[in-house]
Amino acid sequence: MNFNMKEAIELLEKTPKTLESFLSGLSDEWLSCHEGEGTWNVYEVVGHLIEGENSNWIPRVEWILQQGYRKPFSPFARFAHLHNSEYVSIDDKLQEFQRIRTLNIAKIKDAIDPDLHLELKGVHPAFGTVKLSELLSTWVVHDLTHINQIVRVMAKRYDSDVGPWKEYLGVLKDH
Amino acid sequence: MNFNMKEAIELLEKTPKTLESFLSGLSDEWLSCHEGEGTWNVYEVVGHLIEGENSNWIPRVEWILQQGYRKPFSPFARFAHLHNSEYVSIDDKLQEFQRIRTLNIAKIKDAIDPDLHLELKGVHPAFGTVKLSELLSTWVVHDLTHINQIVRVMAKRYDSDVGPWKEYLGVLKDH
Repeated sequence: MNFNMKEAIELLEKTPKTLESFLSGLSDEWLSCHEGEGTWNVYEVVGHLIEGENSNWIPRVEWILQQGYRKPFSPFARFAHLHNSEYVSIDDKLQEFQRIRTLNIAKIKDAIDPDLHLELKGVHPAFGTVKLSELLSTWVVHDLTHINQIVRVMAKRYDSDVGPWKEYLGVLKDH
Repeated sequence: MNFNMKEAIELLEKTPKTLESFLSGLSDEWLSCHEGEGTWNVYEVVGHLIEGENSNWIPRVEWILQQGYRKPFSPFARFAHLHNSEYVSIDDKLQEFQRIRTLNIAKIKDAIDPDLHLELKGVHPAFGTVKLSELLSTWVVHDLTHINQIVRVMAKRYDSDVGPWKEYLGVLKDH
């Protein structure tokens, strides 16, 4: 196992500031581009990260700590952020993500003792038995998967603009 | 064509600060992990970005502006940074990248008139005729490809730690 609470928290702490450095002040052409119908632009990805902070990670951590594996977690509504059509600027979204992530990190630092709790089990509605360390690892990799998505979506805006160099640019081959 | 000089410069300006927010202060376990023998860790990726600033993008821009397509550019040594074995901290590398990127952006703002120069042609040693706009688009997407690489390399450290959630985490399927 590579998972380690201290190192995982390092990355969870980094994500909001990294996204702010990357996204704040960009032209709307970068923020609103996407990979085709039904795919997410930057606003939607950040909305999804906020939704995860509210409804997914901490409720499931608490479920495992309090209920264990007596009954499965509720499924996470992975598309809930798409039903909120109110326009919010990217800076406001990034601030909200930073705010709630900071609170959530404080909660896990307070609630989880890595020497006691990492092997505790819960029941995922689709996967069955999962461990707290797997949930926390997934939270970290979920951040990374969505940073990758944002970067890939932007790169693809220039898919044909790069001409023959496309051959050398791995990001244009990801999907 | 989606390429536009102002929007391209926005992203080129973002990359050093984004990487600093993401990488500065991380444990060496995150900075030195890689995808297997012959693949790059974070230090090496940042070294490659610095090498590109020194030896690739600006020399080729200047070549197109000054020599046009009378003779091909020299090939870029894409692995040159691997021959420099001196240890440099990640913060020093990130500062060096920021410093030279800032200079290089000033150079292209000064040298390129988007109304006159974007269609100018050069000869790539492998690809043949390329346009200045393609070179500049490639510079942007090259940044994005290497941000993606760094994120992917870190994510894969937790490839087995995430347990069954792997199925939902696209970044673990990229290569």
